[in-house]
Amino acid sequence: MNRRMICRVLGLILECLTGLLILPTVAGLCYGEGVTHFLITMALSGVLGFLLARVKPFSDVIYAKDGFVVVSLGWVLMSLIGALPFVLSGDIPNYIDALFETVSGFTTTGASILDDVEGLSRGCMFWRSFTHWIGGMGVLVFIMAVLPMSGEHSMHIMRAEVPGPTVGKLVPRVRQTAKILYLIYIAMTLLEMLLLLLGGMSFYDALLHAFATAGTGGFSTKSASIAAFDSLYLEMVIAVFMVLFGVNFNLYFLLLIGRWKDALKSEELHWYLGIIAASVMAITLGISKMYGGIAAGLRHAFFYVASITSSTGFGTVDFVTWPEYCKWIIVMLMFCGACAGSTGGGIKTSRVIILFRNVACEIRQMIHPRTVTRVQLDGKRVDTDGLKAVSTFFTSFMLLLITGSFLVSLDGYDMATNFSAVLSSLSNIGPGMSLIGPTGNYNIFSYGSKLVLTVMMLIGRLEIFPILILFSPSTWKK
Amino acid sequence: MNRRMICRVLGLILECLTGLLILPTVAGLCYGEGVTHFLITMALSGVLGFLLARVKPFSDVIYAKDGFVVVSLGWVLMSLIGALPFVLSGDIPNYIDALFETVSGFTTTGASILDDVEGLSRGCMFWRSFTHWIGGMGVLVFIMAVLPMSGEHSMHIMRAEVPGPTVGKLVPRVRQTAKILYLIYIAMTLLEMLLLLLGGMSFYDALLHAFATAGTGGFSTKSASIAAFDSLYLEMVIAVFMVLFGVNFNLYFLLLIGRWKDALKSEELHWYLGIIAASVMAITLGISKMYGGIAAGLRHAFFYVASITSSTGFGTVDFVTWPEYCKWIIVMLMFCGACAGSTGGGIKTSRVIILFRNVACEIRQMIHPRTVTRVQLDGKRVDTDGLKAVSTFFTSFMLLLITGSFLVSLDGYDMATNFSAVLSSLSNIGPGMSLIGPTGNYNIFSYGSKLVLTVMMLIGRLEIFPILILFSPSTWKK
Repeated sequence: MNRRMICRVLGLILECLTGLLILPTVAGLCYGEGVTHFLITMALSGVLGFLLARVKPFSDVIYAKDGFVVVSLGWVLMSLIGALPFVLSGDIPNYIDALFETVSGFTTTGASILDDVEGLSRGCMFWRSFTHWIGGMGVLVFIMAVLPMSGEHSMHIMRAEVPGPTVGKLVPRVRQTAKILYLIYIAMTLLEMLLLLLGGMSFYDALLHAFATAGTGGFSTKSASIAAFDSLYLEMVIAVFMVLFGVNFNLYFLLLIGRWKDALKSEELHWYLGIIAASVMAITLGISKMYGGIAAGLRHAFFYVASITSSTGFGTVDFVTWPEYCKWIIVMLMFCGACAGSTGGGIKTSRVIILFRNVACEIRQMIHPRTVTRVQLDGKRVDTDGLKAVSTFFTSFMLLLITGSFLVSLDGYDMATNFSAVLSSLSNIGPGMSLIGPTGNYNIFSYGSKLVLTVMMLIGRLEIFPILILFSPSTWKK
Repeated sequence: MNRRMICRVLGLILECLTGLLILPTVAGLCYGEGVTHFLITMALSGVLGFLLARVKPFSDVIYAKDGFVVVSLGWVLMSLIGALPFVLSGDIPNYIDALFETVSGFTTTGASILDDVEGLSRGCMFWRSFTHWIGGMGVLVFIMAVLPMSGEHSMHIMRAEVPGPTVGKLVPRVRQTAKILYLIYIAMTLLEMLLLLLGGMSFYDALLHAFATAGTGGFSTKSASIAAFDSLYLEMVIAVFMVLFGVNFNLYFLLLIGRWKDALKSEELHWYLGIIAASVMAITLGISKMYGGIAAGLRHAFFYVASITSSTGFGTVDFVTWPEYCKWIIVMLMFCGACAGSTGGGIKTSRVIILFRNVACEIRQMIHPRTVTRVQLDGKRVDTDGLKAVSTFFTSFMLLLITGSFLVSLDGYDMATNFSAVLSSLSNIGPGMSLIGPTGNYNIFSYGSKLVLTVMMLIGRLEIFPILILFSPSTWKK
């Protein structure tokens, strides 16, 4: 392990965090609020970052293990420090609550412990939504976009931070890839903000909702979430952008360079859109009666299918009152999540495709033991290592879900609440079922459960293994 | 595919079923009941069996695929015909209900649609419990024990019917292996019956409860299940035997031939007993207060842990009223199930061990990409194919659980009911949570859901692939 290099990168992350904290500070100043809490945090983060970044590594090689360690430690450190403004300002007086909210922000989960979102200071509210935007694409991808780092090895960092079974470099150089990803991200965020402004949202609300949509996070500036705006236009703009931010960003790159056909051929995209269409139809059938017509049913079905499958978690009506089968579709979408290489969470559509095809393949293999059957995606064979990685991911996801639900069940809430809280955290969705539906929040849980869910959110965002590696003793052996 | 050989074996199965139906007929006669329903069923089964068994195969080779097909078709056929006595006697007038009850019997699930078990005729009640005993060890294993079949190829049948990731032949000849398994099975069943008789049970009750325990089924002769006897002694005898029937039968064989050390070294046994001990302690802590003391808490905790982890499903008190975390332990035991090579269901302890070790192994591999790490069980390396089989099994189990819950949710019951009904069916447990706990039953479901759950029970008992293979078009291509 290259400890010195890890320290240096952690230093860079903190310096970067210090820089990012300028924005909420400015937001606070604009609204005439005190910003001491931000300044103290920036000072702490800045000094610690400066010291760590000055560590001179003997070599700048980053091994695979180092990539995982630096990404997971970086995210933990960012969250620990990022929670301070909430505590220091008194907006969220308890540190564990603040940590939950911050991790929920960075991991783009959007699960909140706040009963009264409107009661936050403007600066802290800005910071809360901004964490979604930072976490969506990833702070290390950002660092790679702006700082010169040795190309080959920084791929290990990218691989650990970008969601999905495989990470494709768009262009030969990692730095260029990171830059392109961020440019697309910024452009789409601005476009959404513009459309929200056109719908009559204030600049502040439009910006913060664009942040939360882009990161597929789900924090709103209102306790009632999107329902507070009561506007079909705004709902539809947000729903469409939720779907768009759940698409693999590589496809946007292909569109940009004119390879339309390649982009539209993506099997994951077809399944993603297919799942959305089928879910919307099935739910519309079930809820239209409740809302007095197909049009209203379609509106709410589309909004929530987009919100859940993209793992954003914005809310309008209360889906906990929907028919059971509609609620189970929501749960299935929580498992599935968005596309690999997007800002969304969950198991990811491409992994789900591979899992189903692998089972089908295994059955064919049993029927014809002597023929070789292969799992394919986008016309390419998924090799044995790829298959193994996907099934180990799924196994770990399920084992974490089952054991996590046990830990949370110690609080004594009903099964649907416990199970959906852990699933929602692991998949970085936001709302769950029963007590933590769109009208509830996570403040009902004990501090123990909040910590469990905090860890689950981090595990989910970094796709399980980087965080588990932190807990493995052999990581820390010389 | 050797279709003629498949027909022949299906014929043998039906002839065997005809023979087995003599016992409930005798039971009915002893109680002075009419037995026309059994005679009609035997006539049908006997004639069909006679015709099919007369099909002359060109060769007696059974390929792997044929083994799966014959086992799954055999089980479906047995269930379709085995349901007739319930319908013809008028005890369960609806055929789908009768099929559900019969499949629940053969698959040793023990989930019932009956509100009033005591209302059954004695003959049908005997048949209902006897199906557990038949299904526990498997009717094809029985056929192999009594009929001469070509050795090498019949292994494919055994592999498809005996639960667990690997099937070891105890002795070189399959027929001898099957015989030994059945002898141990019969001896243990008789021993339990004797102990139940000593506790004051009637001969009829003792025999039927011994059948249900041996098969890890769970049908009782009383609607109130074991609670109806209100006897600590009987509860403990049944609980101990539930644990014993959840152990791999190979270990009993090793004990028989004096290889004590080898038997007691089994890692799966250690985990199985460890999981039971830990679960009993955790649940005792949670429920002692409810029942007025540690002793009563321990009694109910041990009984239910034994009942659920062995996948039997006998009931005493109502665990639906237990604290949430105790209920989640019950759910986790439903997933885990008993040992491979036992009559119990679930994912099986050895598979769970392999799954956890595989994740740990994958993490070590990520930390040290150049060292080769291996998953071991009982000191032996689990090879790549073995690992793949276990993870495909787990993946399929989870995908079936999620999609099955969706289908059942169309009935509109709460999430815990739907989810636990499918889990309980797949793992062949019996009771579930919420509305289908120890005091509820499966009659609340629509016929559609009952059929879905019927298929899930068969899928679970035959460990997924044999039934899925039936649905695959490439099985039926020439």
